[in-house]
Amino acid sequence: MTDKINLNADLGESLGAWRMGDDASLLRIVQSASLACGFHAGDPVTMRRTVRAALDAGVSIGAHPSYPDLLGFGRRSMRCSAEEVEALVLYQIGALDGFAKAEGARVTHVKPHGALSNDSSRDLALAETIARAIEAYDRNLILLAPACSRLAEAGAAAGLRVAIEIFADRTYEDDGALTPRSEPGAALHDAAACRAHVAAMLDAKGLVARGGKILPTPIHSICVHGDGPGAVEIADTLKNFLKEQYVLAPIPTLFA
Amino acid sequence: MTDKINLNADLGESLGAWRMGDDASLLRIVQSASLACGFHAGDPVTMRRTVRAALDAGVSIGAHPSYPDLLGFGRRSMRCSAEEVEALVLYQIGALDGFAKAEGARVTHVKPHGALSNDSSRDLALAETIARAIEAYDRNLILLAPACSRLAEAGAAAGLRVAIEIFADRTYEDDGALTPRSEPGAALHDAAACRAHVAAMLDAKGLVARGGKILPTPIHSICVHGDGPGAVEIADTLKNFLKEQYVLAPIPTLFA
Amino acid sequence: MTDKINLNADLGESLGAWRMGDDASLLRIVQSASLACGFHAGDPVTMRRTVRAALDAGVSIGAHPSYPDLLGFGRRSMRCSAEEVEALVLYQIGALDGFAKAEGARVTHVKPHGALSNDSSRDLALAETIARAIEAYDRNLILLAPACSRLAEAGAAAGLRVAIEIFADRTYEDDGALTPRSEPGAALHDAAACRAHVAAMLDAKGLVARGGKILPTPIHSICVHGDGPGAVEIADTLKNFLKEQYVLAPIPTLFA
Amino acid sequence: MTDKINLNADLGESLGAWRMGDDASLLRIVQSASLACGFHAGDPVTMRRTVRAALDAGVSIGAHPSYPDLLGFGRRSMRCSAEEVEALVLYQIGALDGFAKAEGARVTHVKPHGALSNDSSRDLALAETIARAIEAYDRNLILLAPACSRLAEAGAAAGLRVAIEIFADRTYEDDGALTPRSEPGAALHDAAACRAHVAAMLDAKGLVARGGKILPTPIHSICVHGDGPGAVEIADTLKNFLKEQYVLAPIPTLFA
Repeated sequence: MTDKINLNADLGESLGAWRMGDDASLLRIVQSASLACGFHAGDPVTMRRTVRAALDAGVSIGAHPSYPDLLGFGRRSMRCSAEEVEALVLYQIGALDGFAKAEGARVTHVKPHGALSNDSSRDLALAETIARAIEAYDRNLILLAPACSRLAEAGAAAGLRVAIEIFADRTYEDDGALTPRSEPGAALHDAAACRAHVAAMLDAKGLVARGGKILPTPIHSICVHGDGPGAVEIADTLKNFLKEQYVLAPIPTLFA
Repeated sequence: MTDKINLNADLGESLGAWRMGDDASLLRIVQSASLACGFHAGDPVTMRRTVRAALDAGVSIGAHPSYPDLLGFGRRSMRCSAEEVEALVLYQIGALDGFAKAEGARVTHVKPHGALSNDSSRDLALAETIARAIEAYDRNLILLAPACSRLAEAGAAAGLRVAIEIFADRTYEDDGALTPRSEPGAALHDAAACRAHVAAMLDAKGLVARGGKILPTPIHSICVHGDGPGAVEIADTLKNFLKEQYVLAPIPTLFA
Repeated sequence: MTDKINLNADLGESLGAWRMGDDASLLRIVQSASLACGFHAGDPVTMRRTVRAALDAGVSIGAHPSYPDLLGFGRRSMRCSAEEVEALVLYQIGALDGFAKAEGARVTHVKPHGALSNDSSRDLALAETIARAIEAYDRNLILLAPACSRLAEAGAAAGLRVAIEIFADRTYEDDGALTPRSEPGAALHDAAACRAHVAAMLDAKGLVARGGKILPTPIHSICVHGDGPGAVEIADTLKNFLKEQYVLAPIPTLFA
Repeated sequence: MTDKINLNADLGESLGAWRMGDDASLLRIVQSASLACGFHAGDPVTMRRTVRAALDAGVSIGAHPSYPDLLGFGRRSMRCSAEEVEALVLYQIGALDGFAKAEGARVTHVKPHGALSNDSSRDLALAETIARAIEAYDRNLILLAPACSRLAEAGAAAGLRVAIEIFADRTYEDDGALTPRSEPGAALHDAAACRAHVAAMLDAKGLVARGGKILPTPIHSICVHGDGPGAVEIADTLKNFLKEQYVLAPIPTLFA
């Protein structure tokens, strides 16, 4: 029997008159997409169009909630209270799910964006707050969390189904954190390098840090980014590589 | 058999550190509340708290969507496209419904706010767009619309259940429009005057314009405002008056 | 003696992580630039960078104030009060001028953006409000206004120096208004067509409407847009054409 | 000869339809006011009205720049880059100064707000960034900084004139930091207690921490808050107390 795996991308990151990413191309490649909900990107029109495009492409939809920071694209940490975080995650899931509902579909996973993801990968209390918000909305929602993160731990502890993702184009430190973007080599821009990075981690059944250290982890999904040069080529390369050994499947069906 | 009627108020209009309205008092008086959804007022924390307070008080919850205009409190007309209006209404309903869902409840009505309400009372195409958004989200949602408005017409034509409201503290023109706030006497500030205004309209089974003209309309709900001086006293006076002849009921039960 | 003329473009319309327009190329072509001030585009970092780039290129700087409408890129009419318009124009001029001041320079003109420009081209009261704001800030600021507009009239009546601009890539109606973007042919996308359009108007010393009608007007500046495909080629073509007969000069020097 | 001292308050913190603080009363008491610039509070209309009211009252005006965080009232730390901080401080000073300029006046001091103040009190690099922005705008601007803060140090090192303020209604820790608001007793709500707190610090010529420790510091200004119950009474009490021994003066005249 062939194992299932998932390719996911963060989409719907345009805003009003501003375009970002090649969503149409990526929707032909990935099986799941995490969509911006208006706090770091994604005005209502963009959200509706992207939900429709994802459903048309047979791609499962996740909410990609962020700190409220359009100008910083959600990449700046904000010291929010637990009540604030819980409310802003709920708000964004609900808003996106409304667009899915209008198409007769549903949001099936949640994946925090940017600084909210980074912060909750390290900070267990924040991670628990996010898990609580997801659980309050719908305990059948799947939490898509970085490998070896506090967020993955908190989701599991809350009884949520947790899908673990690795990043094809980002390197890791020995503690499992992403190498900060400010460091040289933090991002891989070459399709072959991304494929090798993913292959190494699938083989090792774990994160492979820059220094070679292996941190064992289940791997359910590979995240590809949509907004860099070469993004589509990288995604295509990975899909072709993964198809050799896996059945590519939307996140919900990994748990079916 | 006694007729049912509804008292409603627009609540949850605080924003972050800024307080508006005496929600706690009004929740003890009204049976239904329309809650700001973040576009004219109502940050996520305020929304969550207000949803919980309304449910605790046994008050049914409606979404109160607005043009995206925090600084103008949604009172400024914006020339949005139909696609934009449909998306922003869906976004706001979904966001609020997420908070209701987190409490095991649901949004049961939708009432446009401010300039979106005024514009859609006059402009049939805009009214149809709003009705379409509501229908797309959930065709069981009730549209709470001003008496004698294009919005009420469009809702009925779309097959939505439409609850018709009159304003206790606002006077009407001969065409059924609200007297613009810029005109003297547009708003009533005295509890006795509000009661007499409402009594006259219930007796006439229609709007009673400033000049005495009567425009026949069903009346399902009386709207009281929450943010003026004397708001609570006006609401209390109306409730006591209505109780003499009606059973006060949440909007959904008017259609049960 | 050769007449002076000006080429201007609207720049600095990126926002945070979103890029718009090829500012670097256009800054090598135009003599004056109107920069977004944060209300329709242009976060503080973008504003500062664009001010510096314009000054480095010897391009004079204008403020490009807008209705507060990031999601609509300032293209949606908003019914604002005179007090609101005066304040939001002042706010945006001041904010941009601060960045100029930090470089030892100054904002030298003001040009309303999008719907604020269109509305004030038709509505004299709105035009007077904008003129009043500019005058309050600095009566030496030049108002860059569309030909045959109420805005140009109001600026002149207020005693402001008014530079009249025509659009190279937009057609005109018989009343001098721009053909609405919703109509086919409203925008010219071909460099030769733009050159012919500008040549005809300079020859006629007036707007040349689609139907052939000529509306006499002084012409101080030609506006080229920066965000379409072919924008740079169009600008370059116009510059080469204008150089044959005119001295290209920044707006302030037209009045020196 | 009598020493000069200053009473200052943070004003203009309303937003659109939301009111905050009793600015009119405080403007009769203080000699200097720091006005919100639109990032944590203070829409353009509020800014213009408050500038005019301050000037009418003979109160000197300062900019009160904040992180971009309306919903959090600027009280949430945001991890912004130096380029972002420099640009957002410049933007806010320029915007407010535009309103002053429109009245023939100028902003004469700058005082960071909320989390930007707290963060720059501890973080020298952030403090230096703020000082650099002020210096770039106008090196004659006075930096109003908390006693014993990195911000005061950075301002002095940059060659800015620095006015040192103490808070009448907030207690201090042994390191000179404000007691966090989350701790009981962090804020004083009683006029007599505030007066005693200020008197002790003026006598000691230093901060007097909760535990009794004294941290020597010059004291140029006393900050009173405008938005709590009793704010006006506290301010009045302090003014009457200070008048006994000092000449109350606007911040710029302290350096004249």
